[in-house]
Amino acid sequence: MSISFEIEATNGCARLGRLKTPHGLVETPVFMPVGTVASVKGVSQDILEELGVQILLGNTYHLYLRPGVERVRQLGGLHRFMAWPRAILTDSGGFQVFSLNELRQVSEEGVKFRSHLDGSSHFFTPESAMEAQIGLGADIIMAFDECTEHPADRERVRQSMELTLRWAERSKKYFEGHKNEVPWSRPSSVVDRRLEDQLQALFGIVQGGMDLALRKESAERLIEIEFPGYAIGGLSVGEPRALTRAVVEATLEHLPSDKPRYLMGVGTPEEIVEYAGMGVDMMDCVLPTRAARHGLLFTSGGRVSIKQARYAGDEAPLDANCGCRVCQSYSRAYLRHLYAANEVLAQVLNTVHNLSFYLDTMRAVRHSIALGNKVQLFPGEQSLAEP
Amino acid sequence: MSISFEIEATNGCARLGRLKTPHGLVETPVFMPVGTVASVKGVSQDILEELGVQILLGNTYHLYLRPGVERVRQLGGLHRFMAWPRAILTDSGGFQVFSLNELRQVSEEGVKFRSHLDGSSHFFTPESAMEAQIGLGADIIMAFDECTEHPADRERVRQSMELTLRWAERSKKYFEGHKNEVPWSRPSSVVDRRLEDQLQALFGIVQGGMDLALRKESAERLIEIEFPGYAIGGLSVGEPRALTRAVVEATLEHLPSDKPRYLMGVGTPEEIVEYAGMGVDMMDCVLPTRAARHGLLFTSGGRVSIKQARYAGDEAPLDANCGCRVCQSYSRAYLRHLYAANEVLAQVLNTVHNLSFYLDTMRAVRHSIALGNKVQLFPGEQSLAEP
Repeated sequence: MSISFEIEATNGCARLGRLKTPHGLVETPVFMPVGTVASVKGVSQDILEELGVQILLGNTYHLYLRPGVERVRQLGGLHRFMAWPRAILTDSGGFQVFSLNELRQVSEEGVKFRSHLDGSSHFFTPESAMEAQIGLGADIIMAFDECTEHPADRERVRQSMELTLRWAERSKKYFEGHKNEVPWSRPSSVVDRRLEDQLQALFGIVQGGMDLALRKESAERLIEIEFPGYAIGGLSVGEPRALTRAVVEATLEHLPSDKPRYLMGVGTPEEIVEYAGMGVDMMDCVLPTRAARHGLLFTSGGRVSIKQARYAGDEAPLDANCGCRVCQSYSRAYLRHLYAANEVLAQVLNTVHNLSFYLDTMRAVRHSIALGNKVQLFPGEQSLAEP
Repeated sequence: MSISFEIEATNGCARLGRLKTPHGLVETPVFMPVGTVASVKGVSQDILEELGVQILLGNTYHLYLRPGVERVRQLGGLHRFMAWPRAILTDSGGFQVFSLNELRQVSEEGVKFRSHLDGSSHFFTPESAMEAQIGLGADIIMAFDECTEHPADRERVRQSMELTLRWAERSKKYFEGHKNEVPWSRPSSVVDRRLEDQLQALFGIVQGGMDLALRKESAERLIEIEFPGYAIGGLSVGEPRALTRAVVEATLEHLPSDKPRYLMGVGTPEEIVEYAGMGVDMMDCVLPTRAARHGLLFTSGGRVSIKQARYAGDEAPLDANCGCRVCQSYSRAYLRHLYAANEVLAQVLNTVHNLSFYLDTMRAVRHSIALGNKVQLFPGEQSLAEP
């Protein structure tokens, strides 16, 4: 047993699903907050639980460098290490090697790269990336892939896609041979007995750049290898948003409807709603947490740049329609003051609100799918009540 | 009505008291966490409430510079501005002018100083410091004083003490004439009606350097002016701890036993227990919060420097005897990782724990006084059970 996925309702292309993982249920479509190095920056795990986060994303690249996979493994895996009882997904490290390393060297065997922390040299292969992710012990782990740069010519994109497919096979092969090494199964583990016999799930990643034919081929050949879930990778790499949308839409057509579909690294509130409407089940993005640190807040009335002087005397809550603990307690004037005074609490509160907004957005999307309503941002009570 | 103070039990010199303020009860001896610019760095107000914080300290100097007194006043005062329903005390600004401004110019009229933020020039007088503290609207405010430098010769200390006494009279005079201008009483205020007719309390500050005779004179002449509470200022300015202790002990003898006694700017856990045992009722210090930011944590087993590599694989809680949400959830290994990875959550969690430790320490002190036991750090169950 690793994961199971059931679709409870559909609405056009959109799907309402239940993804069962060894660490609990995930209602889809779901937004996964990013906890890069085993922490969603500034927010403690009890608050994440209170916000209703059902699954967190951890970055294998960062965790591999610090605190190190062996350390986390010895401490019982990521869940126990960071005291997070719910589901976790780790990425493959491929995207970070791509985005944080200008001097990376890709070969058939794997990728040589330098640590962004200390410049030390490292080598990731599909096998070592699997070993790392098994040691970290997330519920869902990702095949090692090459994130193709953009723009790239068709031949380069094809070669990169082919490499990712070969790496997907190697990832699966290694995983199948070592999946029982997940740290939950350690005899000394004090983790809940219900985790016995529970395994991780390995998802494949579709690549193929912005070429729809290559995306189709990548999807079809990945499905032949067979994974319990499929991700769309290699987007949000500098291409225009309309192109992202077109590639997502075209790729989704070729992914099996009975398996979870994960679109990596998107997006704005408008985008996550749109992609959910297109049939994406899982998404992650640093936007809500990173924007929060820069004082950019998402509200039902649109974006608020809380650093602006216009908010210095504003007694209203950030978002009168938001039930989060920040909007229930604090004024815009106070949030603006904290940001202007460079207080750490600004980051904490801004992050809590932005995450709450994203999670509320996805809750509303799931509600709309269940009711058969149009999946849109802020459907409003009236449209929710429509037949 | 401003404050009332009742002593419920005594134990040697130590006193168990109930300080009633317009914003709730404060059980003494009490430790007041420092929320310099209307925020205890990194910790949200609901967590402070959960920790049992009954009174916070705000720094007038910092709040005057940012966000500005008029801003806070227009927003209903500090309580409403920062959404803190319990008691607040603001200092006079005298200590910060002293410690953050090497180029300050002191005259009979007041102190000219430059902002540590932008170098702009400002002038504090006893009257303007009262005006600022009335506008901020804390429950307890402090007379404007000169914090005498150390070391200083006797004549300089006497002159400084005399200046502080004249400033105390001017502070009281201004306060008496303007105390009804506290922002709670604004007709437009939506604050709880029980605050009607409630006023701030102005405390006087004893100075006199390290000279016990001058401390005695300062205390006696301050008592003649008459305040509802008395503070001991001008300590922790570089003198040895034994000298601090001697000055505190000698000064306490000359303070009225029926009024709250506030020792400003101390100390370590050992010190706050010792001073409470000597009869101090109120204390504040940046130590627990500042140390937390540097990874120095106070535990029942002594200090822990969480940055040390020895904790990298340590699965134990920071303090097995601590009931705070940090010690209940996270391992030393995780806290060490957060600190080493420079994660903001390190500061948040470390601060929550250190504050919890200080507040628990004072709870234990109050318990010991009530039971007639020796007031000491970690009395343990056995000594608490002794007759």
